Amino acid sequence: MNGAQAVVATLVAGGVDVVFANPGTSEMHFVAALDDVPEMRAVLTLFEGVATGAADGYARMTGWPAATLLHLGPGLGNGIANLHNARRARTPLVNVVGDHALDHKRLDAPLESDIDALAGTVSGWVRRSLTTGDVGADTTDAIAAARGWPAQVATLVLPADVSWTDGASVGPVREARSAPRVPDFDVEGLADVLGPSTVLFLGGLALLEGGLIAAGKIAAATGTRLLAETFPARMQRGAGLPDVLKLPYPPEGARKQLAGVEHLVLVGASEPVAFFGYPGTDGHLVPEGCTVHVLATPEEDGVSALHALADLVASDAVPEVVEPSRPDLPTGALGIKAFAEVVGALLPERAIVVDEALTSGYFLPGATVGAPAHDWLTLTGGAIGQGLPVATGAAVADPSRPVVSLQADGSAMYTIQALWTQAREQLDVTTIICDNGAYAILAGELENVGAPSGGERAGKLLDLTGPALDFVALATGLGVPATRATTAEELAEQFRAALAEPGPHLIDAVLAR
Amino acid sequence: MNGAQAVVATLVAGGVDVVFANPGTSEMHFVAALDDVPEMRAVLTLFEGVATGAADGYARMTGWPAATLLHLGPGLGNGIANLHNARRARTPLVNVVGDHALDHKRLDAPLESDIDALAGTVSGWVRRSLTTGDVGADTTDAIAAARGWPAQVATLVLPADVSWTDGASVGPVREARSAPRVPDFDVEGLADVLGPSTVLFLGGLALLEGGLIAAGKIAAATGTRLLAETFPARMQRGAGLPDVLKLPYPPEGARKQLAGVEHLVLVGASEPVAFFGYPGTDGHLVPEGCTVHVLATPEEDGVSALHALADLVASDAVPEVVEPSRPDLPTGALGIKAFAEVVGALLPERAIVVDEALTSGYFLPGATVGAPAHDWLTLTGGAIGQGLPVATGAAVADPSRPVVSLQADGSAMYTIQALWTQAREQLDVTTIICDNGAYAILAGELENVGAPSGGERAGKLLDLTGPALDFVALATGLGVPATRATTAEELAEQFRAALAEPGPHLIDAVLAR
Repeated sequence: MNGAQAVVATLVAGGVDVVFANPGTSEMHFVAALDDVPEMRAVLTLFEGVATGAADGYARMTGWPAATLLHLGPGLGNGIANLHNARRARTPLVNVVGDHALDHKRLDAPLESDIDALAGTVSGWVRRSLTTGDVGADTTDAIAAARGWPAQVATLVLPADVSWTDGASVGPVREARSAPRVPDFDVEGLADVLGPSTVLFLGGLALLEGGLIAAGKIAAATGTRLLAETFPARMQRGAGLPDVLKLPYPPEGARKQLAGVEHLVLVGASEPVAFFGYPGTDGHLVPEGCTVHVLATPEEDGVSALHALADLVASDAVPEVVEPSRPDLPTGALGIKAFAEVVGALLPERAIVVDEALTSGYFLPGATVGAPAHDWLTLTGGAIGQGLPVATGAAVADPSRPVVSLQADGSAMYTIQALWTQAREQLDVTTIICDNGAYAILAGELENVGAPSGGERAGKLLDLTGPALDFVALATGLGVPATRATTAEELAEQFRAALAEPGPHLIDAVLAR
Repeated sequence: MNGAQAVVATLVAGGVDVVFANPGTSEMHFVAALDDVPEMRAVLTLFEGVATGAADGYARMTGWPAATLLHLGPGLGNGIANLHNARRARTPLVNVVGDHALDHKRLDAPLESDIDALAGTVSGWVRRSLTTGDVGADTTDAIAAARGWPAQVATLVLPADVSWTDGASVGPVREARSAPRVPDFDVEGLADVLGPSTVLFLGGLALLEGGLIAAGKIAAATGTRLLAETFPARMQRGAGLPDVLKLPYPPEGARKQLAGVEHLVLVGASEPVAFFGYPGTDGHLVPEGCTVHVLATPEEDGVSALHALADLVASDAVPEVVEPSRPDLPTGALGIKAFAEVVGALLPERAIVVDEALTSGYFLPGATVGAPAHDWLTLTGGAIGQGLPVATGAAVADPSRPVVSLQADGSAMYTIQALWTQAREQLDVTTIICDNGAYAILAGELENVGAPSGGERAGKLLDLTGPALDFVALATGLGVPATRATTAEELAEQFRAALAEPGPHLIDAVLAR
């Protein structure tokens, strides 16, 4: 068994049986090993940012790492932005980055670069495997690191000769990740501060059903308010679940939500801060005089902590949950409100929603809150171009669920190549492009930062027309059937049709401006 | 004057008056400053890999840096692969990477990451500007670093508050880069080894006309052979210039070229090594018993050194140059030979050829060697997805020259977004996609590395059909007129038509397999 075969077999033995791959020469033995270890599913992507984003989406839905296969430093570089998002999502993920053979490194061949430095910027664990004898065990360690608590990105650098040399063995399988540490929290002390001027600020796994129900019981029993972090990796919501607002992205909106709060209790979330700094404002969002309590850090088990607190203060309480309701189907002009209403009216059962709609998504939370229970995946790290890849990975993770990918136009262009993988794998993803022909979020930011009101030359840098992007042509070119909607009725009709048919579809929703 | 205005004004004062930009919130003051400093031309790209590759292409043609404008770590990350190529091309380039305001850094907001570590992997110079008072001078230093000898990538990290705060001043203008050091070479000693079993191995600026003519004189006078590095940043060739073969990419081809060589004289090139290591082979390409001499390292002035050597041994010699000649226009099936012949037959005067044709480019050197003198830009660092961006930047650099972009299909998909910038700026670029529906280079590599002959699952990872990419639709979606050629006649007709019309065009050349 050569090293590459051992890596693939160890990944599979450890439950990592999907790899999103962009291989090159240094990875050819890994590729060849796919025929020796047929349990590994290899999903080809046309660009590494798709591979890393798809691995992120996969793990957000399964809780289990996928692997990526990347080609030296430049391949890892192309994947960095979505690995940044994965790091912020605390996603378990195993990167396998091929590198030159050990005796080739010192020749400074054209593709030589500092892979370890690149990897370090996004990984909680980095190791260069140095001998074929150890590569199986190194792979075991990579999986264990990824599945640690909290989960993280683990990067295994795999020299070509370590791959091609015989004498490797499959690494051991480790137990499922050790039980998360129960944090050393003061439940009774916290119980005293619960009430209407207190907010439980929820993040991470606390935003899945179990945590939400526990939080909902606490809210019902004590009047405590619930808020979610602004950009959750995965949040469950909809009919039958407590309605938990996400803290708004604009700092003034966030401050409004937090005004008057006397106690902010962090549950698997960090203290809220502004996304960007702005002239003359403080990036901290916690109001003056508000005491911050930590029930669980993001590194701790917020769900168990919530259950313990609920047991203490709300054992008999019944959480308030959302009644099923949907907006009426809108008619006429297609603005961002009508867009949201169409999504809310037609969102299918058990949908996975991937939300990179940015400014066009303003009305989505309200329009979808009463839809059948669904998962909502967001842009965790602010590196745009996450939506289409995450949707791709989520669809690989659970083919039984429809994926609805709500995607801003400018951001879509960062990783548009993901559509091809959706077509190749016939994934059930319906993408709606929020086509406003602009980097609309930046127009607002240009004002927010106090820049002089944009002149013509500044404005041109926020404009995506001239030429207008034709997303129907782009999707078609990548093998995804596509249509264009310019009215609310057209969007509804096309969304319904896309959902009714298996496989990927794209709708270019041309939004009234 | 705020910091951003000072940065833009200092760039312009230093001659850096083009910026390829992908701005976000942290860069909004830079964007606003474009209206205050109208001498700066801002070229919007849809993806940072396009911005960095375009800046590389621009500087390869001008010898002068362009700037990029990138958004924090993820934006820089998206640009890393083409910055890697720029580093390998020894391209002068100034990255301006926006970052959070200084007092926002410690809040660990979602976009926070280690920009400096990322920048260090591709930059010869990195600085974080820390005060508005210094930002003008910091910008001057960045330009000077980029224009150093050798040229390099310089990265200036620009915090948002340093941009928005008033009190900045324009940095000083430095003299044009100091005269390159004349290397301490032993011309007379080298003169003794010249002859038919000696090769002058040329790289860097030695591959432009002046160096080539000097090398050609030496060859004419002494029988010394000339070879060029495998992947030059820019090489001048064609009718009226000496015919200098590039050392082949496959190691066996390179070894064949170098067999029997007793003296290898490096002139602005590194000692040749294999691109990748392969099982059981040595990565060094210099034959046993061959003595390596250094006339000039890549860090030294190879052109002056060549002239000194030519003055000594070949002052009256007349270099052998290529006579004008073109292949006949081919007919019938469109294979890679016919593709090359069409290019050779129709290559316009003063063309800038950007070559990322990879396996499809095998016949290009022979088919174009007698075409009117032209520039040839190659994939310097092996990070695919360089061609379309470099062509974009080269066209910005010199609008008077036609750019011919010869592009492998799989690689095209890494930075296909470049077409939109070509359309927006109405650049005179004719792209021919070498459409073989596969990562063809990897099929060969799968054999080269000794991997077991590819099974079905391995083969699927090298295959780009299912679905086939429709490059005509993709180009149309990005605003570039496109056609499809399936015969030699069609390619010739469409290439001629594209060249005759200003603005960008794309031809999807479907190659017989």
